[in-house]
Amino acid sequence: MLKKRKIVFVITARASLPRIRTVISACKKDKSLSVLVVVAASMISNKYGHVYDRLTNFGFDYDWLINSLYDDERISSQPKTTGNMICELATFFENQNPDAVVTIADRYETIATAIASSYMNIPLIHILGGEVTGNIDEKVRHSITKLSDFHFVSNKDSFNRVMKLGENKQNIFNTGCPSIDVAKESKKIKLSDINLNGVGPKIDLLKPYVVVLQHSDTNRFSQSRKDINILLKAIKKLKCQIIWFWPNPDAGTASLAEGIRSFRELANIENIHFLKHLDDMKFLKLIGNSRCLVGNSSVGIRECAYLGVPVVNIGFRQENRLRARNVRDVDLNSENIYIEIVKQLKVGKYKSSLLYGGGGSGNIIAKKLSKIKLTFKKQIVY
Amino acid sequence: MLKKRKIVFVITARASLPRIRTVISACKKDKSLSVLVVVAASMISNKYGHVYDRLTNFGFDYDWLINSLYDDERISSQPKTTGNMICELATFFENQNPDAVVTIADRYETIATAIASSYMNIPLIHILGGEVTGNIDEKVRHSITKLSDFHFVSNKDSFNRVMKLGENKQNIFNTGCPSIDVAKESKKIKLSDINLNGVGPKIDLLKPYVVVLQHSDTNRFSQSRKDINILLKAIKKLKCQIIWFWPNPDAGTASLAEGIRSFRELANIENIHFLKHLDDMKFLKLIGNSRCLVGNSSVGIRECAYLGVPVVNIGFRQENRLRARNVRDVDLNSENIYIEIVKQLKVGKYKSSLLYGGGGSGNIIAKKLSKIKLTFKKQIVY
Amino acid sequence: MLKKRKIVFVITARASLPRIRTVISACKKDKSLSVLVVVAASMISNKYGHVYDRLTNFGFDYDWLINSLYDDERISSQPKTTGNMICELATFFENQNPDAVVTIADRYETIATAIASSYMNIPLIHILGGEVTGNIDEKVRHSITKLSDFHFVSNKDSFNRVMKLGENKQNIFNTGCPSIDVAKESKKIKLSDINLNGVGPKIDLLKPYVVVLQHSDTNRFSQSRKDINILLKAIKKLKCQIIWFWPNPDAGTASLAEGIRSFRELANIENIHFLKHLDDMKFLKLIGNSRCLVGNSSVGIRECAYLGVPVVNIGFRQENRLRARNVRDVDLNSENIYIEIVKQLKVGKYKSSLLYGGGGSGNIIAKKLSKIKLTFKKQIVY
Amino acid sequence: MLKKRKIVFVITARASLPRIRTVISACKKDKSLSVLVVVAASMISNKYGHVYDRLTNFGFDYDWLINSLYDDERISSQPKTTGNMICELATFFENQNPDAVVTIADRYETIATAIASSYMNIPLIHILGGEVTGNIDEKVRHSITKLSDFHFVSNKDSFNRVMKLGENKQNIFNTGCPSIDVAKESKKIKLSDINLNGVGPKIDLLKPYVVVLQHSDTNRFSQSRKDINILLKAIKKLKCQIIWFWPNPDAGTASLAEGIRSFRELANIENIHFLKHLDDMKFLKLIGNSRCLVGNSSVGIRECAYLGVPVVNIGFRQENRLRARNVRDVDLNSENIYIEIVKQLKVGKYKSSLLYGGGGSGNIIAKKLSKIKLTFKKQIVY
Repeated sequence: MLKKRKIVFVITARASLPRIRTVISACKKDKSLSVLVVVAASMISNKYGHVYDRLTNFGFDYDWLINSLYDDERISSQPKTTGNMICELATFFENQNPDAVVTIADRYETIATAIASSYMNIPLIHILGGEVTGNIDEKVRHSITKLSDFHFVSNKDSFNRVMKLGENKQNIFNTGCPSIDVAKESKKIKLSDINLNGVGPKIDLLKPYVVVLQHSDTNRFSQSRKDINILLKAIKKLKCQIIWFWPNPDAGTASLAEGIRSFRELANIENIHFLKHLDDMKFLKLIGNSRCLVGNSSVGIRECAYLGVPVVNIGFRQENRLRARNVRDVDLNSENIYIEIVKQLKVGKYKSSLLYGGGGSGNIIAKKLSKIKLTFKKQIVY
Repeated sequence: MLKKRKIVFVITARASLPRIRTVISACKKDKSLSVLVVVAASMISNKYGHVYDRLTNFGFDYDWLINSLYDDERISSQPKTTGNMICELATFFENQNPDAVVTIADRYETIATAIASSYMNIPLIHILGGEVTGNIDEKVRHSITKLSDFHFVSNKDSFNRVMKLGENKQNIFNTGCPSIDVAKESKKIKLSDINLNGVGPKIDLLKPYVVVLQHSDTNRFSQSRKDINILLKAIKKLKCQIIWFWPNPDAGTASLAEGIRSFRELANIENIHFLKHLDDMKFLKLIGNSRCLVGNSSVGIRECAYLGVPVVNIGFRQENRLRARNVRDVDLNSENIYIEIVKQLKVGKYKSSLLYGGGGSGNIIAKKLSKIKLTFKKQIVY
Repeated sequence: MLKKRKIVFVITARASLPRIRTVISACKKDKSLSVLVVVAASMISNKYGHVYDRLTNFGFDYDWLINSLYDDERISSQPKTTGNMICELATFFENQNPDAVVTIADRYETIATAIASSYMNIPLIHILGGEVTGNIDEKVRHSITKLSDFHFVSNKDSFNRVMKLGENKQNIFNTGCPSIDVAKESKKIKLSDINLNGVGPKIDLLKPYVVVLQHSDTNRFSQSRKDINILLKAIKKLKCQIIWFWPNPDAGTASLAEGIRSFRELANIENIHFLKHLDDMKFLKLIGNSRCLVGNSSVGIRECAYLGVPVVNIGFRQENRLRARNVRDVDLNSENIYIEIVKQLKVGKYKSSLLYGGGGSGNIIAKKLSKIKLTFKKQIVY
Repeated sequence: MLKKRKIVFVITARASLPRIRTVISACKKDKSLSVLVVVAASMISNKYGHVYDRLTNFGFDYDWLINSLYDDERISSQPKTTGNMICELATFFENQNPDAVVTIADRYETIATAIASSYMNIPLIHILGGEVTGNIDEKVRHSITKLSDFHFVSNKDSFNRVMKLGENKQNIFNTGCPSIDVAKESKKIKLSDINLNGVGPKIDLLKPYVVVLQHSDTNRFSQSRKDINILLKAIKKLKCQIIWFWPNPDAGTASLAEGIRSFRELANIENIHFLKHLDDMKFLKLIGNSRCLVGNSSVGIRECAYLGVPVVNIGFRQENRLRARNVRDVDLNSENIYIEIVKQLKVGKYKSSLLYGGGGSGNIIAKKLSKIKLTFKKQIVY
């Protein structure tokens, strides 16, 4: 009997799940592969919803859990979460002895997976390298590229960027983003299956609504509270229904959440429903059906390209990222944000763009993972 | 009164000391700078000599010490040492609040300094980026480049490589390697001041001798013992005096040291003096005065270029590194190693090359550190 | 010149501050002592108020800060916070080389201080050992006693208990609890200086009010939410003004806080003012002036004995602790809690008890710390 | 089908293996139990022999491995190894969710097991509590007792001591020491099966020989080298064959090992065979057949009581431990050590003492582990 190729996936944030789960599902179906899923950091934080408990909805379960989040509103929590994860992932890898490890995208703690595996001579596979943004993610992402042996990128721009970074062309694959697989699937969801159980007024999804998704900027985290007030001021002017998602647990998040909370308590906001989390399919259906997405999330750039949703993208967080025609950029200014939202509401839906893929990435990547010759030794090409 | 610019240097290995100490000394003399020196990892390991105790010889002292080395012969010790250092450096930075942090070269644990500072939005300065080698250092070095805001490189090749990696040209400085400052200084040392207190026969430095400096290869560390036997076999054939330096504490080192020890005990080696450590000036004087340096150390490529010492460079560890005419490369084969050493012994001294600088780098870098506008936000240039 | 005796105090929770600050102030005044204050864990968590920023109010400042709190609602966060603190305190002690270290009371993370110092052969001083309670604190407290070299206890019962634990009688001192020093001082505070800036109705401190202070029980943390509902039901029945303090960051706290929050949002509670934190003097003045303290805090047992405040103590958290006549115990049952509160409201103020001291402990302990012969070697006496 | 009771054993040092392995073997045979074995710290250090690789000799294997040893000759390595183990054990327990955890004896890092499990509300079982010694172990052991819920002790003295420490009598069991099971088994080993592959002269086991087993004293670790020289001087005088075991990896060990090494190289010692490790059965057979055991190991007190081997016990390390008539105590003085050895050589074998049990403890403890009602909540009895 042939030994199966053992692959470990490390998921550290709920935002990473839609970017990897069709890959994991496809790998699970491949009989030449043995798959282990590790969940850690904000992925397992109650504060942001028990996402890891619902993995079984996608046909697999997690195999190991690492409580690693320092959740104080201190910037030192970011390196410390990372340092702790390196130690504990090293132990997991030492016991499991995988043939390859997969790390996803560019959140700060994903470099922990990259260091633990590359330092232990385990071939490292990076999903979604080569993109470009405007904060700490930018440093982290390219740094992970230089530690990685294989690169699965979501678009032609990223392919070229990884190649320019001195990686061997044969080890870079433009497969589209697996999150587009989910965006495609999400079209089958019925609106009536979406049950919004956040705080605030009941939302009628058959009527127009706008979605807000704003993360804190780690480069200016002390500003978070002020920033959120600017955004709240713009949103307050809108007459339609608003669904506002709580931010992810970066440093600065507590301030941001506190800002939302105190705003919600003081101001008389009757049209905003505040929500912690939604399963990714429902989340994308909700966004796909919205009149406009407002904020600084990469969902606006990536999934909304495919879904054709109008986006008002705020500030520098997605700076320089390849974008389709659906995105209007704006600086962090109440008046300007309001104006851009109004413009997008007038435009309505855009044509679907295949910039980040058109579905099927999960299967393509899984196939590669079972076939490529795994190595961990490389050298810069120039 | 003007606030001084506070700069932290983190030194994690004795090999890094000659590559940074003239920079630290020069910064200490600059009244606009406040300097803090952190020593950690193998830098403070007794097993490899108490180097940190002798910093005062160079006109400064360490300010903080972090015991961070997992010294088991397990490859997981590399990520774990790194993870631990990230956590503890984050605490130090949080308490000290520096204006900039300096990390040196490319040993695995140096990425800890890079992560702790970049994740805390502290401008990061990298010394000796852009070089190219053939093992895990290669991944680490370029990965640190992508986390760093400023780059001080030792040669034109490195300058170009860092630029190709997407770094902003204005933030890259070709200053030569500070270790050449030390090599230059070392010429003033008297041979009679060098006291070899290792194990083995007494060495007469006025007579011909060869120096061996072979590190374990982290990509094939289980092979270390076999590798060392191959080298020992070649060295045994030489008739002249041999000075053999013990390797640095990478995974695989214990095997390597054990190989040396058992060889020393079993074989009747009358001409090899085994040595743990020597102060950098004496070390370079010793090498400068040798007939040949044998092994896989970067000293052979770098300092020996300036010193004109003939080098037999073994294996892939220094692969693709820019080298002067003094280096002869050879694979790990007893017979071939022996042949190349004999050739070099016949050639004698080479002309000094300025490939890695000609002295004075410490002052140049210190001046830049006091003047450059410090930033921590960057984006890939392409 | 005589070398000063260097003493490190590690404060890990805001609840510890009133139990140690008069000791620190007194030590700071003693010219034979050099004092270092480390703040860590929930002491520096924003979520529970920036207590460490206000140390200067008490005439001293912190010297080192360790971000160490894993603040996820997982029970594994307790050992992990502890493990991390051990590593980082070891580094601090290694660099500072203190003559003695002081650890306070019995929260889970205080054992980190005990292990780091005792394992490094530094004499360890324990404040408030020998007491008895009903949860994990019970294990932690006596475990710390066995690691400690000197014991400062708050009452005769504790003295006897530490002695029975096999400690040498000469190294145990019954000095009363330093928190009584603060309780005594608090009498000088004017009610008009207390400014309640929590959420809820404005409170008139000149009219009757009840204070609630309920911590989660780490032995049954999954129950926390249910527990809090039981208490809320009892409190809701009261007609007078209520001041409710948010709980400390034990596992289970998020549930508890969420319970309070959702209750506050759903129920129509017009008489409860929710408060995060108050400086210890104002806090004790507030309690001293209240008609009744309800909950499971040790403040009810200790400071309220001296202050003569009627207390309704709920559940097992303070089980077996020495108490004065001011305390009425009750199980976690809405009806019973309500009945006991009503009884206490009828009784009114009790006579002050000196069970836990009568003020001045800070000076007594400081004097001992400067005089006792410090040792770190001991053996069980039986 | 009944759910099995899941029990985790954590083994952190090779010295612990003979004290627990008959318990593990017996538990493995009990169909109501599910057993997991974790190996960590010096148990998995190559430097001290790959003991964990040979567990299968005893009919079981390890299930998880944690690389946790900071092996620098710094005293801070002791708390750091402990802190790291707490974090990683917490992760293992969180994923495995055991019904009980077993910690063994009193080495410094065993408190990590105690903290991780007790802080996670997992019933904790302590093997070999209640004994008394003269160094840091003394603090650690009783501290673990106060964290533990159940106590399996090796003798009546220990039973009484644990009871006096305030533990509930029903939860203390005097079962004898499992290492006596091994000592009993070891009698069946043939001398001819023992193959000494250390460094030094070949030993003829049919002729008289003395065994040396001296650990460093963590309370005076800077003294280690001097101490070892005193002992070496005494041993050198003996005319018979000597088998000397290398010490365990406490702080101070490197000095000690270096002392041995340099002594071995300088002095002309023709009768000492230096040995790293031997499987426990062969080890005890070797000792059982020796004329005398010299040093400060607890083996001299415990197993040698049963084996009737004459022991010269040096210094304070075993101070106050219950001992049979086979032990002669001596201070660390060359002349006195020599005299005591000579006396013991004259006496010859002692009568077997059952002070620490007479074999069968493994089965007794396993039976208890499957039957006792597991709880994690306790209170001091006085």
